[in-house]
Amino acid sequence: MLRFVVAPSGFKECLDADGVAAAIRTGIRRIVPGAIVDTIPLIDGGEGSARLLARSTGGELVPVTVTGPVGEPVAAHYALLGERTAFVEMAAAAGLSLVPPDQRDPGTTTSRGVGELIAAALDADVEKIVIGCGDSGTSDGGAGALRALGARVLDSDGAEIGEGGAELLRARHIDVSGLDPRLSEVDVVVAVNPENVLCGPNGVARRYGPQKGATPEQVEQLAAAMQNWADLLRKHSGTRCSALPGAGASGGLAAGLAGVLGAQLQSRFDVFLESADLDRRLEDADLVITAEGAIDASTALGKIPTEVARRAKLHSRPVIALCGTIGPGADTSYDHGIDAITGILTGPVDLADAITRAPELIADATARTLRMLLLGRTLRAA
Amino acid sequence: MLRFVVAPSGFKECLDADGVAAAIRTGIRRIVPGAIVDTIPLIDGGEGSARLLARSTGGELVPVTVTGPVGEPVAAHYALLGERTAFVEMAAAAGLSLVPPDQRDPGTTTSRGVGELIAAALDADVEKIVIGCGDSGTSDGGAGALRALGARVLDSDGAEIGEGGAELLRARHIDVSGLDPRLSEVDVVVAVNPENVLCGPNGVARRYGPQKGATPEQVEQLAAAMQNWADLLRKHSGTRCSALPGAGASGGLAAGLAGVLGAQLQSRFDVFLESADLDRRLEDADLVITAEGAIDASTALGKIPTEVARRAKLHSRPVIALCGTIGPGADTSYDHGIDAITGILTGPVDLADAITRAPELIADATARTLRMLLLGRTLRAA
Repeated sequence: MLRFVVAPSGFKECLDADGVAAAIRTGIRRIVPGAIVDTIPLIDGGEGSARLLARSTGGELVPVTVTGPVGEPVAAHYALLGERTAFVEMAAAAGLSLVPPDQRDPGTTTSRGVGELIAAALDADVEKIVIGCGDSGTSDGGAGALRALGARVLDSDGAEIGEGGAELLRARHIDVSGLDPRLSEVDVVVAVNPENVLCGPNGVARRYGPQKGATPEQVEQLAAAMQNWADLLRKHSGTRCSALPGAGASGGLAAGLAGVLGAQLQSRFDVFLESADLDRRLEDADLVITAEGAIDASTALGKIPTEVARRAKLHSRPVIALCGTIGPGADTSYDHGIDAITGILTGPVDLADAITRAPELIADATARTLRMLLLGRTLRAA
Repeated sequence: MLRFVVAPSGFKECLDADGVAAAIRTGIRRIVPGAIVDTIPLIDGGEGSARLLARSTGGELVPVTVTGPVGEPVAAHYALLGERTAFVEMAAAAGLSLVPPDQRDPGTTTSRGVGELIAAALDADVEKIVIGCGDSGTSDGGAGALRALGARVLDSDGAEIGEGGAELLRARHIDVSGLDPRLSEVDVVVAVNPENVLCGPNGVARRYGPQKGATPEQVEQLAAAMQNWADLLRKHSGTRCSALPGAGASGGLAAGLAGVLGAQLQSRFDVFLESADLDRRLEDADLVITAEGAIDASTALGKIPTEVARRAKLHSRPVIALCGTIGPGADTSYDHGIDAITGILTGPVDLADAITRAPELIADATARTLRMLLLGRTLRAA
């Protein structure tokens, strides 16, 4: 009996990882009816992660109304997981989708709501708080979140600076005398993409500022503000955030939490894939199927399919990747443990139509691919 | 060393079979550099067949100006092949693409130019004439072609009827006294799709009339005309064209040539695949790759991929089919010897873009598919 591990990402703005995994399982069963299919829908910490994590682990989603990225209240939530752990999804309180398009300016948006979610988790008496980064609409170095937790960020006159990333240029001192004392009793872990750094040419301002709505001029202003924030954090606690892997995550939220709260930054996949017990489950797989909305040159830079493939290769397992779009540079993923790639599209369609039909397209593509793979078994050696 | 037979159709209005075969070979070589690749670009007798057949067999394309389907002269050609054989492509003289869109009316267009091409071939002193059907713009039962060769089609008053399918309703007598006497000295073979019948609910008028420009009313008029033509042909020569497999090919051209000239109707693939010596070449293949612009429910009804697959299965060879579009009912081709299907598209694109990039898309898809197949060899038995 063939054993499959199905470990996909969600298809962004299309179908969540649960839905993708279910569609792949449907396709497998069509060709190998008795197959053993172990589905492991994976998250990256960004938008939708708290909901999926709560559902897949039997946890609980706790609703909390917090200050949104533009100051309006938003209905957010965190996930309460087993063993007194809270998972705080940054995007639930300060995600880009919560910023109306005409107000997208990372110089002014705030991560305050993230701090409010952390405070709510402290109220629930947890021992560990995991912050998931990704899909953020802010670039304030986590200053908003820290202030919601009682810290003060002061200018050269000792006055509190305003909200938003642009204000960080004026920050000269961090006052932690009012910080919530319960923070010293919990482990705070920030799940980051280690590729995201705070400063420099690949820093968060220049890499993500434009998609968060910053003009070229605002990008440079933000970059200077991030450098000042890095300098201040180093002075405050000795933390060298400037080029720390992952410190740039979610508009520098990771840097602020590391520099002020002493939070640990961990690779998001080390956090989430370990919680899914992926390594043990991969051990028994005859074939690993992963998936993502697009496979392209960025896939090799720390996206779910290559993270799954890297781990599968520790057990010498074959890995295939399904995707909606095969983009430029997709072939680079062959160097990262993905053995073969297949797309789900069947004809010239527009994106909206492909999104609507995604479950069916994914199931059909899985079935076609398995036919191809099983046919391969009949080929003689080269 | 793996041996591939690459036997594709052309992708209609996109890339001819030569181009498709070359792109597939490119993709194969990228993954299996030393592979033995036997390319057999296949034709179905329709548009472009004469050119490809002349090129692939070392034959000669002979230009002839003939009467086009709407009466204007058109630059046509036939192919002179080895051993005193001529190949006349119906579509070169009376194809749908020669009928301006605003003049598309199968009630009036004529196959006269096809008869003129046959006459030109007779001038070249051939012993055998093969007529390729497909992509026709006419539905005149071959009456135009027969008249170009000296026959007369008369109404109840003994006067010649006009050009076009609608006039066949008035046909009462066929006068062959003026027929070119050289026709009795040559073998005339019409290469047809046996699925095409002349009359009835699946007859040529109802099945192809609309795409040739007939209104619903004209379709019924044409269907009645075809029935009358079938009755007349039976009276003339005893040939029962009404439900004869393939007699409906090219708007009933096959029926007229069979009923008046005694032409033999042969399955187009028996004609063309035998000339390509396909059976012998399939014997040595480790994998057969065929292709067509679209794989859908119609593929099983006598299209190139299933014809290739049927023959490959006589030697128990694995067959995969590449296509531009995977349409509804594509799965039915699995019952006809195709083991697996793969599409070439990599993302949501418009048709025009996909057509432009077809060679690259086909080569890339071939490479991805071979990766999948070769990976399959490493899977353990189910």
